[in-house]
Amino acid sequence: MKLAVLGGGGVRMPAFIRGVLSSREVAFGQISLFEPDRLRRETTGRLAVELAAALGQPGIVQLTSEIEEALTGADFVFSAIRVGGDTARVVDEEVALRRGIVGQETTGPGGCAMALRTIPVLLSYCDTLARCAPGAVLINFTNPVGLITQAISLHTSVRVVGVCDTPSSTLDRLAGFLGADRDKISFSYGGLNHLGWITSFAVDGQEQIGQLLDRYDELRRFDHVFAAFDPAQVRRLGAIPTEYVYYFYEPARYVAAVARAGTSRGTDVLRLNSELLDAIASAFDAGGVDDAWSAYSALMGVRRDTYMRTDTDGHNQQAQARARRAAGGGQPGGGQPGGGQPGGGRAGGYEGVALQVIDGLTARSPGEVIVNTRNGASLGFLDPDDVVEVPALVHGGGVSPLAIGQLPRSAVGLITQTKEYERELVEAAVTGDAGLAALALAVHPLVPGVTVAREMISEYRERHGPHLAYLR
Amino acid sequence: MKLAVLGGGGVRMPAFIRGVLSSREVAFGQISLFEPDRLRRETTGRLAVELAAALGQPGIVQLTSEIEEALTGADFVFSAIRVGGDTARVVDEEVALRRGIVGQETTGPGGCAMALRTIPVLLSYCDTLARCAPGAVLINFTNPVGLITQAISLHTSVRVVGVCDTPSSTLDRLAGFLGADRDKISFSYGGLNHLGWITSFAVDGQEQIGQLLDRYDELRRFDHVFAAFDPAQVRRLGAIPTEYVYYFYEPARYVAAVARAGTSRGTDVLRLNSELLDAIASAFDAGGVDDAWSAYSALMGVRRDTYMRTDTDGHNQQAQARARRAAGGGQPGGGQPGGGQPGGGRAGGYEGVALQVIDGLTARSPGEVIVNTRNGASLGFLDPDDVVEVPALVHGGGVSPLAIGQLPRSAVGLITQTKEYERELVEAAVTGDAGLAALALAVHPLVPGVTVAREMISEYRERHGPHLAYLR
Amino acid sequence: MKLAVLGGGGVRMPAFIRGVLSSREVAFGQISLFEPDRLRRETTGRLAVELAAALGQPGIVQLTSEIEEALTGADFVFSAIRVGGDTARVVDEEVALRRGIVGQETTGPGGCAMALRTIPVLLSYCDTLARCAPGAVLINFTNPVGLITQAISLHTSVRVVGVCDTPSSTLDRLAGFLGADRDKISFSYGGLNHLGWITSFAVDGQEQIGQLLDRYDELRRFDHVFAAFDPAQVRRLGAIPTEYVYYFYEPARYVAAVARAGTSRGTDVLRLNSELLDAIASAFDAGGVDDAWSAYSALMGVRRDTYMRTDTDGHNQQAQARARRAAGGGQPGGGQPGGGQPGGGRAGGYEGVALQVIDGLTARSPGEVIVNTRNGASLGFLDPDDVVEVPALVHGGGVSPLAIGQLPRSAVGLITQTKEYERELVEAAVTGDAGLAALALAVHPLVPGVTVAREMISEYRERHGPHLAYLR
Amino acid sequence: MKLAVLGGGGVRMPAFIRGVLSSREVAFGQISLFEPDRLRRETTGRLAVELAAALGQPGIVQLTSEIEEALTGADFVFSAIRVGGDTARVVDEEVALRRGIVGQETTGPGGCAMALRTIPVLLSYCDTLARCAPGAVLINFTNPVGLITQAISLHTSVRVVGVCDTPSSTLDRLAGFLGADRDKISFSYGGLNHLGWITSFAVDGQEQIGQLLDRYDELRRFDHVFAAFDPAQVRRLGAIPTEYVYYFYEPARYVAAVARAGTSRGTDVLRLNSELLDAIASAFDAGGVDDAWSAYSALMGVRRDTYMRTDTDGHNQQAQARARRAAGGGQPGGGQPGGGQPGGGRAGGYEGVALQVIDGLTARSPGEVIVNTRNGASLGFLDPDDVVEVPALVHGGGVSPLAIGQLPRSAVGLITQTKEYERELVEAAVTGDAGLAALALAVHPLVPGVTVAREMISEYRERHGPHLAYLR
Repeated sequence: MKLAVLGGGGVRMPAFIRGVLSSREVAFGQISLFEPDRLRRETTGRLAVELAAALGQPGIVQLTSEIEEALTGADFVFSAIRVGGDTARVVDEEVALRRGIVGQETTGPGGCAMALRTIPVLLSYCDTLARCAPGAVLINFTNPVGLITQAISLHTSVRVVGVCDTPSSTLDRLAGFLGADRDKISFSYGGLNHLGWITSFAVDGQEQIGQLLDRYDELRRFDHVFAAFDPAQVRRLGAIPTEYVYYFYEPARYVAAVARAGTSRGTDVLRLNSELLDAIASAFDAGGVDDAWSAYSALMGVRRDTYMRTDTDGHNQQAQARARRAAGGGQPGGGQPGGGQPGGGRAGGYEGVALQVIDGLTARSPGEVIVNTRNGASLGFLDPDDVVEVPALVHGGGVSPLAIGQLPRSAVGLITQTKEYERELVEAAVTGDAGLAALALAVHPLVPGVTVAREMISEYRERHGPHLAYLR
Repeated sequence: MKLAVLGGGGVRMPAFIRGVLSSREVAFGQISLFEPDRLRRETTGRLAVELAAALGQPGIVQLTSEIEEALTGADFVFSAIRVGGDTARVVDEEVALRRGIVGQETTGPGGCAMALRTIPVLLSYCDTLARCAPGAVLINFTNPVGLITQAISLHTSVRVVGVCDTPSSTLDRLAGFLGADRDKISFSYGGLNHLGWITSFAVDGQEQIGQLLDRYDELRRFDHVFAAFDPAQVRRLGAIPTEYVYYFYEPARYVAAVARAGTSRGTDVLRLNSELLDAIASAFDAGGVDDAWSAYSALMGVRRDTYMRTDTDGHNQQAQARARRAAGGGQPGGGQPGGGQPGGGRAGGYEGVALQVIDGLTARSPGEVIVNTRNGASLGFLDPDDVVEVPALVHGGGVSPLAIGQLPRSAVGLITQTKEYERELVEAAVTGDAGLAALALAVHPLVPGVTVAREMISEYRERHGPHLAYLR
Repeated sequence: MKLAVLGGGGVRMPAFIRGVLSSREVAFGQISLFEPDRLRRETTGRLAVELAAALGQPGIVQLTSEIEEALTGADFVFSAIRVGGDTARVVDEEVALRRGIVGQETTGPGGCAMALRTIPVLLSYCDTLARCAPGAVLINFTNPVGLITQAISLHTSVRVVGVCDTPSSTLDRLAGFLGADRDKISFSYGGLNHLGWITSFAVDGQEQIGQLLDRYDELRRFDHVFAAFDPAQVRRLGAIPTEYVYYFYEPARYVAAVARAGTSRGTDVLRLNSELLDAIASAFDAGGVDDAWSAYSALMGVRRDTYMRTDTDGHNQQAQARARRAAGGGQPGGGQPGGGQPGGGRAGGYEGVALQVIDGLTARSPGEVIVNTRNGASLGFLDPDDVVEVPALVHGGGVSPLAIGQLPRSAVGLITQTKEYERELVEAAVTGDAGLAALALAVHPLVPGVTVAREMISEYRERHGPHLAYLR
Repeated sequence: MKLAVLGGGGVRMPAFIRGVLSSREVAFGQISLFEPDRLRRETTGRLAVELAAALGQPGIVQLTSEIEEALTGADFVFSAIRVGGDTARVVDEEVALRRGIVGQETTGPGGCAMALRTIPVLLSYCDTLARCAPGAVLINFTNPVGLITQAISLHTSVRVVGVCDTPSSTLDRLAGFLGADRDKISFSYGGLNHLGWITSFAVDGQEQIGQLLDRYDELRRFDHVFAAFDPAQVRRLGAIPTEYVYYFYEPARYVAAVARAGTSRGTDVLRLNSELLDAIASAFDAGGVDDAWSAYSALMGVRRDTYMRTDTDGHNQQAQARARRAAGGGQPGGGQPGGGQPGGGRAGGYEGVALQVIDGLTARSPGEVIVNTRNGASLGFLDPDDVVEVPALVHGGGVSPLAIGQLPRSAVGLITQTKEYERELVEAAVTGDAGLAALALAVHPLVPGVTVAREMISEYRERHGPHLAYLR
């Protein structure tokens, strides 16, 4: 079984490769990392290749800058690219934040700009894939996952499943809070990527959502991601929002926090990643794969420890995280849900979800996975071919979404509008219509009007130069 | 047939009385104006009473500060009250505008504060009405019309119909633009009060909505209310929004315009009304009913001429309007749709719509009127007992909403969220729950989060003192 | 204003002409009766023409066998044709009854055969109409009204409204039972032609459906049409079915009754109509228009008095009706709702409903009429372009269906299946596909399977010869 | 893990016990067979007990006539009872067939009578279960499965899953026809028990439903169960009906076939079962468990070989089946899907489906199983708490229905009506209201009216004596 990875030099790849090769769960005969950027090939890419050798499986991981070489014969393809790199992300966020609007990688204007840069590139990779490996399944983590998956699903013949670990890690955290066996949990979750709600959470057939809402103050202390929400609001809602809903429920608080911090997550990540690549390069110069892995895992830990801190707390807490890491060490993934490799190396995060999808589709272990997929009849208020984020049975025959019951009414409103933004934006990207891109952005619930949407699209076109030159 | 008017000293009353008594269309044997404010009784109230005499119908109009006297024996009741007066409106707007949020009489935080002040007062009047005139129909213009009508509909036994002339005047303008006979028009309109869209407009059975969208640039020049919208956005939408949708489609532009103007509509109206009452008082002192009417009609013209100018243009244009009026005269209502008394005195504006409702309910002239009423099955995505704004057949048997087809998807999203805000806000007002009021406000599409919603509710409670003291 | 009548020699025409010309309500300048059958032109047709002269309006009514002459310049067209005449109806009923299946003019296999004969003929008339009078509105009473109207609505450019007086006459009877003013009634009614339910009936805004259900035994004694239904069933349903629902609620009882009677309604009507034309011819031979009218009105009274008796009671009661008529006289229409000309000559029955439609569409008197029209959003579980039978606002702009709330669940089931039968049957008629006609018929709730449906379609093709020769 | 079986002396039990104990898939530590009938305890019951011993697991299977003993400590309970025995089934069928109405064990009047006898008995067992083993899951095969499961789901606190192998065996047959790997199939199926349709059937992600419809004539020759349907009808439908839909699609053909056969399936089964119990008793008298098993398996083979033959072909073909069996031998289950124990003993039929449910609920092997369960949002046109038959993910957390897309419109009509019949019948059984039972039966699509429904309920009450004495 061959796995190809678009964005094979991404910073998460070494950890993923180490996890997947340490585990016996999914057996890949070949993993081909596609990475057009030379610096990344020589740092994270090289680290991934050498880790394989160090784990006694030399040759299994290959690195290439040729897309056809990477895709030919693939059974599964991961997509985790970032068109324009971390620098473009900083621009995405700034243009919105300057106007007092949520400036975030995937949500709002930032996600819009990212999608506009990414869709044409990924559709062209899909053309190649349809030619070189027509039966392959593309597992997409490229953000904004919902938009990108919708574009591929509607405009290519490639079988695609979008993956994000936000909802499953939230469920893990709730199970942890209740001390419940993850296998005995039944839940209801629905929405779009980064805009989803948990409306039911039963343990051993007993509904516990009421208890979770009642104890929400406690839950906030238990885990940082719940702390972003107002307990009274959550209780009134009758459902637990996943973490990115924060940007919809507290845009003004978020913008104020970022202003107070004087930095955005994009800026932090740009610096961290730059430091990371330098550190790997230096470690390879000075020593070998072990040094490179140590440098890598330390900085990835800092990255994870500071996740969402700027946005909710108004300071990035990097100094504290570094100090803690320096004092206590810590492995990538640590004990945190969603972040790591529990149980002896199994890849966590979205790669972990992707491996569950592969296990299901190969009929090795069919089961329930929350994925971004064609809606069918899952959410009755959307269209059958809209891409939604819902639990699905993933099995040898494919991906079959579960029936999702009633979501909170205000959630239905937000999803309805956001999905309309997504439909229009995909159309704008596919037709290369800048005017339509602005109209699409104006539909987004976080954008205060068409005039400001036009201004932002215009500024993005100017600042992202060649990446958006296809828009007319 | 007896008509009672809550808010009988309102500035529109003299014009309404003059119109209705000059016309033969609806024959009231008695019109009782309830006005608790002495200054208003002595100015606008007195003007209304004396106009009746001047029109040869002395005694038909009575003025009272006793609610039971006004309501006893009434067949129909108009409600057009403003709890806290024009001063409160200025506060409503300011609290939002200070935070860069739409500060408007009926939409967003301003409408929320107004509703919170008004609902308890109006529910108490409804108790009296149910006792003193159990069969009477309450025709509500009190803003925010949708919220107030929903509160009365759900929480009293009074038969209520909410009325606003925004959609019908928009239809009149479109008919005027196409040179079409108003009787030959068939349309589809749906939404909530101040949040509605026209999705079909047929003349003689031929659909013209495509033509209207194609010629939207021309339409903007034809009539100011269409100028607020971006033509490309409207065309993409495939429907014509009514004027208040501007606050949802251009909140940033609106806030910038108000900042540029250095004044809000509320402030302008406060000054105009104060000037108006002074002018009427002076005119009565100096002369009689004719002088009072002249002063009144001149200032009402200025008011109408400057409608929405501050919000869309960034200056209130009062000076220009006064100059034009001074030069050319002009009667209340002028030739403007929705504003006046076309055809020899028939009341226009929302009083005109109210008279159509009365004509229908008395079986004198059944027909189609756009009203705020219980949804039933009219908009399939809302609940049967939600109050919506839709065309209905108004006839001797009551109010029967038409079936409304598909609205634009983004409109469905906005309506879904706004109606949820309305449901929760009515519940907050009825239970006196300040916390719930903040959570309700946070659901409103124009409010950027629960933290800022809490701050605003808190500030409203402080500044509106006794009017919001019932909230705990 | 010109009215053309397809089926101008129909037995109801003389009474209609007399009614409409005695009344001042709708003023036609010209009424053109199209009748291809010579015997009918010389009897009922001649009677209609001479009645006009006797009423002082000679020349206003014209008789023609040329379709283009009839239709040219028409503003409104009535369609009341019967392809194959009364003889074909007898066949329609027999083929079903022989198999123990409901054999009825409009419902089940009989209606299917009638529709298959009629649709091609009427679509060809519509082609002529679209050419000769493109703006005309076709008011269709040709049975089965729902099917025929659906065929015209989907497959021609003609504006069509289907009309049947069953629901409105049921409402009249209920108003009569309660002693309520018809103007003060508000109701909810919905379904398909001859398959509709009244789910709400309010007088002066007070819901009375509960009272009507409680007193249903009394209601059965009050009026024969309610007697067909089981009171406990109706109460459980929570809605009042209109009379033709009997064939769905009591097919076995109906078939047994017809067997007991040894005759079907079709056979009775064939004999009555034959006797009627003979009597008119003899009267014209012997005397003049007065004699012809006397003969006509006596026999029409017998026809009306025996309506549905065979189907529900198992004997046609003609002898009794003739004896009663002989003893007491009686005018066409008498005092019975739905049958006649109350209030000084205004046409009742379906012609009365048709005149209401004309009054509305000419903007003379807009109002609520129950019509067969494009569904739009009226019944949410059907398609927008299905033809349904619902109350609509009929006005200068066209026909706007009201929003119909929840129907009984079992009614939804029957309507869903019957409408699918109708869709498929129209497709079969338009494509001339005999196999599809059988599959369509098999979908009908009263047809016990596809094998028997094939047998019946085959027998109809054989026995209706040229009328069904177009089916392959 | 303890399994209790209500109806432990049922004729399928020996085969089930043999299958489950020969397999390693589900490990029961204890199987308690509850059987109140002495003859059955001494024949089929004894056979089951002795088979366990013969398979080297003596003592694992226990036989009891005490319900509390059987249920105490159970983890899972199978319910497969037949109140009134095979004799009652013959009455169920006769009462309908005499009137020319479908007389079938589960569908139509027969199923209605069976449900009325069974519901009170099973609800009382559920009371005991809730007391003796509160966490147990009841897996219900007692027919009519949908009705009984609905009664338990709505009126007890017991966790219940209804099971029937009709849809899964149909899917197996289709996979067999296409030569497809069952693991690579994705399908869509939905409806009620014995009223379901397959609307999608994809192999390796490629939709094959079109191919199956195109080749339907071939499919009829491939497998008897498809032969019942008219190929043109199935193609028009665009979906494959499961076998019991035959009674809805061909009621007249079925009734004629049964009349031709001069016997009904119930009569055949009554005789076969009587012969079976005699044969087992004789075999035990004469020899031992091996002889008893031989006699048993031969007669079970005849039973299976003649399934549905009387209903579709008009003769029961027993003689032929016996001859074939005599000639060739054959094991229970043979090679037929749905009937047996493929792969070395795994229980097939509905017990096989039940074991899949157990595997899923114990988290041993989560997966997709078609079950009768609470609808939730699975079929959008039914209520959330209606019991429906749909594919569900069965896992450690419970049963989560998949989202089912559009069913054929005529199927929606039949399901809507049949579910309403089921709702009302359950209410009738629970309240003991004979009048309501008749009204419920009248709603069933195969019952021609309320008059005949009343007659049948009356006759059932008379002939079923004590079993229906609770109805008033």
